[in-house]
Amino acid sequence: MYDFELDRIVEEVKRVKAGKVALQLPEGLKPHALSLARKIEEEVNCQAYVLSDPCYGACDIALQEAKTLGVDLLIHFGHSQLLSVDLPTLYVESTVKLPVKEAVEKALPLLKGDRVGIATLIQHWRACEEARQVLEDAGKKVLIGPPRGRLKRPGQIIGCDYSTAKDVANEAESFLFLGGGMIHPVGLRLVTGKPVVAADPFKGEAVEVEAYAKKVMAARVSDIAEASKARVFGVVVGLKFGQYRPKLIEKVVDMIRAEGRKVFLIASREVTPSLELNFPEVEAFVITACPLIPLFDYEAYRKPILTPQEAMLSFKSGWSIEDYDPFEGF
Amino acid sequence: MYDFELDRIVEEVKRVKAGKVALQLPEGLKPHALSLARKIEEEVNCQAYVLSDPCYGACDIALQEAKTLGVDLLIHFGHSQLLSVDLPTLYVESTVKLPVKEAVEKALPLLKGDRVGIATLIQHWRACEEARQVLEDAGKKVLIGPPRGRLKRPGQIIGCDYSTAKDVANEAESFLFLGGGMIHPVGLRLVTGKPVVAADPFKGEAVEVEAYAKKVMAARVSDIAEASKARVFGVVVGLKFGQYRPKLIEKVVDMIRAEGRKVFLIASREVTPSLELNFPEVEAFVITACPLIPLFDYEAYRKPILTPQEAMLSFKSGWSIEDYDPFEGF
Repeated sequence: MYDFELDRIVEEVKRVKAGKVALQLPEGLKPHALSLARKIEEEVNCQAYVLSDPCYGACDIALQEAKTLGVDLLIHFGHSQLLSVDLPTLYVESTVKLPVKEAVEKALPLLKGDRVGIATLIQHWRACEEARQVLEDAGKKVLIGPPRGRLKRPGQIIGCDYSTAKDVANEAESFLFLGGGMIHPVGLRLVTGKPVVAADPFKGEAVEVEAYAKKVMAARVSDIAEASKARVFGVVVGLKFGQYRPKLIEKVVDMIRAEGRKVFLIASREVTPSLELNFPEVEAFVITACPLIPLFDYEAYRKPILTPQEAMLSFKSGWSIEDYDPFEGF
Repeated sequence: MYDFELDRIVEEVKRVKAGKVALQLPEGLKPHALSLARKIEEEVNCQAYVLSDPCYGACDIALQEAKTLGVDLLIHFGHSQLLSVDLPTLYVESTVKLPVKEAVEKALPLLKGDRVGIATLIQHWRACEEARQVLEDAGKKVLIGPPRGRLKRPGQIIGCDYSTAKDVANEAESFLFLGGGMIHPVGLRLVTGKPVVAADPFKGEAVEVEAYAKKVMAARVSDIAEASKARVFGVVVGLKFGQYRPKLIEKVVDMIRAEGRKVFLIASREVTPSLELNFPEVEAFVITACPLIPLFDYEAYRKPILTPQEAMLSFKSGWSIEDYDPFEGF
């Protein structure tokens, strides 16, 4: 189902004459890791290390790990390049070979208006044209934002960057999200303010994300309100290579101190609810590592857990939902 | 209860003129982290980062994390120095100020023989003399091994090194372990072969560890037997600074390949049961990161999970319990 581009991998391993390579895959692709390692080792005389720690995105690239192992090539699956890294790295998009027609046809009656934006993950970008065809055959005008900045493919979004969608959001009356899961289509809904239908090629199904987005939004408003009363904040500093944001951290710390609240700096590779157990003095946590943690993990925490912008809003009165952008600063 | 030596910390922060420091504490001490950070920041004009990821020993020192944050001093609590590191680091033993008499008196009737070795953790090393007194008053001959190698204090043991105890094991008829938890006294029992009584100063109680050690040993024998049939091994490479052991890994890999079994190299910072989920082809895991994982986490795994020496034994017939040393190679 996935195109792991084994020929291109083998060619690159040979080209850089790698004696050791490391394979990094996001959680959903990990069960394919060992068979890929075996195939690479069979084709080239090299040692393949499979990295087993969680990988949540291209920001979470295993640069330190690859250096510890002394590998000559890091092969990163499932994401496009996001950061410049000082180690030979091959990005394997791992696109999905699946027809999307069924899911998109099911999405059709749910889509609002005649001008529809398409947003998708790197795995499905090749299927955008197939989706466009289905929508155009039904008389829709299709809008797909061109690649820009960190987003390497037309219509591509990532967890904290929806700029290809923002580019067409004014014109679009609704969005079709092509891919699995609820995290990205909810992000799309929050950022664009437009109705979103998620078409899942794996399941051949489509759903409106409005109810889920409303639930997330209600929780965020509640966390923001609760944090407004907190006297002790824990600013969580992400220690992963692409999640450490010193400028954002400084801004957040200064902002909270300016409000006369106490700030503790808590540095972490993995952000988990053990924060609450280990640091009981903290009344609200601000996560500078990844905005998806407050947005989608909040149910695991009893105390408010905020993005930097949410922390800022917690000190403001009279902010409106139009001001809300959980990805500001990332 | 703990002696965090705040004066010594403040002195050192001033001495190195640190603008930024990082505090690393093992799990049991983490709830003290923020109050320590606050006190340091009150005494010296500096920024204190508290590190929140799990810390399981002095091998697990947050060198990469401290470098990412650009701190001038890493303050590591709860362990003595184990490794040489290229960053100014202050080790704070975090000794416990607690009378141990009650626990040791309760241990007395459980101790076998008249020659008793004492083994303890760094937190309790100062209490060894108090324990010695209680035992000597009861007519025992007390044996405490001198510091050696990685073990900086008399009688000190760590999770993977019991050499101070081994030094007196021939002469001792039994051991008194001074400290909390079952991990270290069971390790002591397995390594020395002598009966061990654990005296816990926090609870003021004492227990024989024999039943627990037998349960662990039975599980280890079972995992070793099951692994002997495995055709596919996953050798888990520890990525933490003090847990990466290239020579041991090479030895293990060569040994397994020489038996005609398939080996996959799986590199990991945190070793968790997600290994089984993510790498279903693997029939037995060998952990080169930390021997305590197979010894004490085995119940969380359905497949055999072994130390390197256990993997070696799985290929041998007719090995006896005297050959068993789970800490070999660490």
